[in-house]
Amino acid sequence: MPDDSHAEALVAAAREGDPRSLARLVSLVENGSAALRPVMRAVLPHAGHARVVGLTGSPGVGKSTVTAALVRAYRALGLRVGVLAVDPTSPFTGGALLGDRVRMQDHATDPGVFIRSMASRGHLGGLAAAAPQALRILDAAGFDVICVETVGVGQAEVEIASLADSTLVIVAPGMGDSIQAAKAGILEIADLFVVNKSDRPGAQEVVRDLRTMLAMARFGADGWKPPIVSASAATGDGIEELVARLDEHWSWLESSGERDRRRLARARAEVSAIAVAEMRRQLGGLPGQSRLDDLAAQVAAGKLDPYSAADELIAG
Amino acid sequence: MPDDSHAEALVAAAREGDPRSLARLVSLVENGSAALRPVMRAVLPHAGHARVVGLTGSPGVGKSTVTAALVRAYRALGLRVGVLAVDPTSPFTGGALLGDRVRMQDHATDPGVFIRSMASRGHLGGLAAAAPQALRILDAAGFDVICVETVGVGQAEVEIASLADSTLVIVAPGMGDSIQAAKAGILEIADLFVVNKSDRPGAQEVVRDLRTMLAMARFGADGWKPPIVSASAATGDGIEELVARLDEHWSWLESSGERDRRRLARARAEVSAIAVAEMRRQLGGLPGQSRLDDLAAQVAAGKLDPYSAADELIAG
Repeated sequence: MPDDSHAEALVAAAREGDPRSLARLVSLVENGSAALRPVMRAVLPHAGHARVVGLTGSPGVGKSTVTAALVRAYRALGLRVGVLAVDPTSPFTGGALLGDRVRMQDHATDPGVFIRSMASRGHLGGLAAAAPQALRILDAAGFDVICVETVGVGQAEVEIASLADSTLVIVAPGMGDSIQAAKAGILEIADLFVVNKSDRPGAQEVVRDLRTMLAMARFGADGWKPPIVSASAATGDGIEELVARLDEHWSWLESSGERDRRRLARARAEVSAIAVAEMRRQLGGLPGQSRLDDLAAQVAAGKLDPYSAADELIAG
Repeated sequence: MPDDSHAEALVAAAREGDPRSLARLVSLVENGSAALRPVMRAVLPHAGHARVVGLTGSPGVGKSTVTAALVRAYRALGLRVGVLAVDPTSPFTGGALLGDRVRMQDHATDPGVFIRSMASRGHLGGLAAAAPQALRILDAAGFDVICVETVGVGQAEVEIASLADSTLVIVAPGMGDSIQAAKAGILEIADLFVVNKSDRPGAQEVVRDLRTMLAMARFGADGWKPPIVSASAATGDGIEELVARLDEHWSWLESSGERDRRRLARARAEVSAIAVAEMRRQLGGLPGQSRLDDLAAQVAAGKLDPYSAADELIAG
């Protein structure tokens, strides 16, 4: 467990481009290590510069292919790119997304690219606390763009999307109900839509459906209306336009003041998640643990209602 | 907001079979109402009798059809049946599962059946806190069997499954990667497997895959080995066997002491979720709110690390 000087040395090495130090730091986040405290102090002066691009969508729409295409495009512009693949659906393994990492292999030896999968291990605070901290570390390590890729599933998706400066919602033809199922939610999180696999049958219909949906939605006078980019990430078609639209969104975020609002909301969620995790840890600590067991036994036996039990637990 | 006597009157009416009082009580849970406290005190003496059957599986496997078939079977035995359809994937609407409720319409006028969809509104404590409370209310209202139906997605699925006495994992042929994707997790939560749509091509292969998976898994000497039931819920084929296997599991839960262990774990999770929600509410309350905003602004500006901010927030 690193102390302050050890944490500073790790952060300095990561900033100089040492991938092993960076990987070590992200592991501390993933494991919810107590060693994060000195690390977070050490990265503080260096963070705040990276653009965070969120990529989400149903399984099978080609999130990893789009991410890989964006990595290639930003590398061609000379930018350093980090990729965090976050799987909120799997408490057991990061396998689903890790499998897709194979497509990233052409970047495996590029020191300007850092790729990491994170699984929700169900640890305290979960991804809501872990993801912003991993972003903060990659940011401090000097990455210009950080892509956060996550499976599109309800609340977790919304939480991850809330971390990004720009959120891409990726859809594809032939995914059946993907748009329909997502309809209620995606308008609230999408800054840009990508219709991937645009060379497949049905792509035009997907674009049309999205246009109809957007036409019915309301946007503020100075608001951003999410553009729809048709792309075939596998061939690279449409990626240049996607990068251009992302640049426009970045400019809008800055000029509208929305970037600062989003970063404030992100910090708010991060602090709140850490505070709740800390309180939960205090509840689950050794003395509280047996107290919780006692109270739970009374609730299970029908002798105490769960609210009174919770009150007693908090009162200690 | 009901006081103690009002809560007792509502609970008494629900126990006498008044569906509107019951619906009102479940709404209090869904909205995370402060009025739950007196309600939970009022239901306390009446709960603890119902069998809770969890049903989970990927979208499209026929969860609602299996649930409807089970409702029919238990009604034929003269038992009162409650159904809670919980959608952890949707913070916005309970639509996905509500749509399927149409299939339940033949039970709509049966006073021995109560059907309710609950969406995760992202409210404090979320489904982890809400679902056990809704179960407790249906239990106290005198339902003999309560079916909890939920979409199979990672952590939420595991949490919901942990509420049930018996968890059915439903799979179906032609769902592609459903078993593969779930593999890592379903063994940990499944008490019984249902291969639904058993008249479709590929059903035999699904059964074989499950058998292979179970053959490789280890079970304790006095442990329960999950049976595999082939069924076609739409025609009713296999439902009689499913009910028989559920009865065997219920007997095993009782004789092995596992039922008490599971109910203790459920009470533990419930008390803990309420305590954390209460602490989170205290953090987000009016004085804390502006304090959180102040601290978040310092974190966003790079002046304070998020752990120190969380410490200050907790210290008040």
